[in-house]
Amino acid sequence: MSAFPLPRTDLATPALLLDVAAMDRNIAAMAAFARARGLALRPHAKTHKSGEIARRQIAAGAVGICCAKLGEAEALAADGVGDIHLTSPVVTRGGIARLAALAARIRLSAVADHPEAVRALAGCGATIFVDVDPGKHRTGVTSPRAAVALAQAIAEAGLTLGGVQYYCGSEQHIARFADRQAAIAERTAYLRTVLAALAAAGFAIPVVTGAGTGTFAIDADLGVLTELQVGSYIFLDREYRDCELAGPRFEQALWVDSSVVSANTPGMVTIDAGLKSFATDAGVPVPASGTARYAFMGDEQGALIGEDLPGLAERVTLVPPHCDPTVNLYDVYHLAEGGTVTGAWPVTARGRST
Amino acid sequence: MSAFPLPRTDLATPALLLDVAAMDRNIAAMAAFARARGLALRPHAKTHKSGEIARRQIAAGAVGICCAKLGEAEALAADGVGDIHLTSPVVTRGGIARLAALAARIRLSAVADHPEAVRALAGCGATIFVDVDPGKHRTGVTSPRAAVALAQAIAEAGLTLGGVQYYCGSEQHIARFADRQAAIAERTAYLRTVLAALAAAGFAIPVVTGAGTGTFAIDADLGVLTELQVGSYIFLDREYRDCELAGPRFEQALWVDSSVVSANTPGMVTIDAGLKSFATDAGVPVPASGTARYAFMGDEQGALIGEDLPGLAERVTLVPPHCDPTVNLYDVYHLAEGGTVTGAWPVTARGRST
Repeated sequence: MSAFPLPRTDLATPALLLDVAAMDRNIAAMAAFARARGLALRPHAKTHKSGEIARRQIAAGAVGICCAKLGEAEALAADGVGDIHLTSPVVTRGGIARLAALAARIRLSAVADHPEAVRALAGCGATIFVDVDPGKHRTGVTSPRAAVALAQAIAEAGLTLGGVQYYCGSEQHIARFADRQAAIAERTAYLRTVLAALAAAGFAIPVVTGAGTGTFAIDADLGVLTELQVGSYIFLDREYRDCELAGPRFEQALWVDSSVVSANTPGMVTIDAGLKSFATDAGVPVPASGTARYAFMGDEQGALIGEDLPGLAERVTLVPPHCDPTVNLYDVYHLAEGGTVTGAWPVTARGRST
Repeated sequence: MSAFPLPRTDLATPALLLDVAAMDRNIAAMAAFARARGLALRPHAKTHKSGEIARRQIAAGAVGICCAKLGEAEALAADGVGDIHLTSPVVTRGGIARLAALAARIRLSAVADHPEAVRALAGCGATIFVDVDPGKHRTGVTSPRAAVALAQAIAEAGLTLGGVQYYCGSEQHIARFADRQAAIAERTAYLRTVLAALAAAGFAIPVVTGAGTGTFAIDADLGVLTELQVGSYIFLDREYRDCELAGPRFEQALWVDSSVVSANTPGMVTIDAGLKSFATDAGVPVPASGTARYAFMGDEQGALIGEDLPGLAERVTLVPPHCDPTVNLYDVYHLAEGGTVTGAWPVTARGRST
């Protein structure tokens, strides 16, 4: 491993670079927004998978964090995070045994979307949320009537009902703000019918958790959610650079540094970051400066195509396309302060998808 | 960690499953093919990143392995692999220092494609290959004249010329065998002009290394390559299932096991393997049995859409779309013998892309 501080140009590439000061400003801006609007903030740690970053979010005012998977929650709990909400259903026998073991050690909540799963969770020690499908059919109950049936199953199993989870994933990346706002308003009208059915059946819903970086300001205005699960705001990425956001301004805080390894063809150079260095589900990374465009060139390389290209062995800084699965490819964040790398933080829960 | 043996249905999912017996048959079949055709076999370890698998390939007759990146080679050398060819140029000052340190410990060869890079490699201790661009412009010299100039630079730098590398990456996945054969024949005609220019300039080329799982039988028939860099044949994947291959028959040996986590919508269920469990550059995984199709549903989940779907908490086995970057997402191979998991092997060089 490298000794720090280190000139950024001496770091072996491809490397994931984090500007901690910019990230801390993003953390503070979102915490101030939530505080001002009277909302609980529970950032999603599937974005960063880092104990250090989760602790900074909580220190800035978050009530706890979200994890997508049990393995991620186990890793972050082992790294000192004491309040976690699991946003994906845990349904297997082995998973529920692990969930109960974790609930004995930290403050844990989880979601369910099927009465059969609720019965299997009886005695697990976690608070249970009714996961409501916002229309994507990924997870969640699909009608107000099913929400009530699930809340009844939770009560019958002797479990504590924590509230409702409603995460509109598809809507986060609608590029035009007005279109996104209209979509969320329509989806929130549906959520109101679910909450009304639960209230009519006598269920108190202390927490309604959801929202992401693309919609939190819209959700705050609509006033139905009580808790924000925002994730990507701490780093931003190429996807969110292309979205019109509202609310506080966030800064790009995450990059991948790469080096030119071949420069034999006019109008292009090859760099050492390819399919194993960037998530590929959301298009291509973009160079942090200049006009060249990136193209994937296989597992280990990419091309920069354009004019004013860097020379052989020179550095290129890129903005990742989709931050969450990109971070999951790296073992460490290298901490950048201008041209100096001052240290490294482990990606604590990298690969913890079970 | 789990204790083994373990029923496969008890393994936490998503999990990478390897059928060692099928893989060993693939290793033996390719070794027999190379032996029968008088070709050296140097499998590409970027596919598996595993010291255990590399040692099995060498024990079956491979002369050594290929690595794509120096970090990968360092990890496999530390795991006992003693003969490695690096297929990507190393050009940075820091990279060359690491390359020299590695060459002092194992038998190492590397590629170069620029006289400036060759000068920087002087004294590194590795044998150097002339990397020849087959037309994709990823890496490699782009003309017979440039190949000769590079060989001269290698001689002038006091380095040992190991031969020529010629890897036709784009051609590996041409679906129709006849089309692939025609493309490789045309590209090999060009390679002959490069080799003729080197011979005319007085350079002996002891090794011509290249080929992949899509083209090795074609390359063997054409008779120009002396060494095969095949990678994916040990596992196969969805991409190669869709290709008409020639030569020995290989078996599917690698899967991802997943579990159903939500089943509320007719005609679909949600499983626990998404963008962080499969490479996304080559389309979608396919279920190992049945007629349902897979769709990505975000970082942590996918959907199975169709009829005869598994129920809540039931298992689903999938064939990964592109094996190399999929393996890179996992820390371990779980070893499957029918319905039993008998152990786990580390993905030794996972994430070692620098």
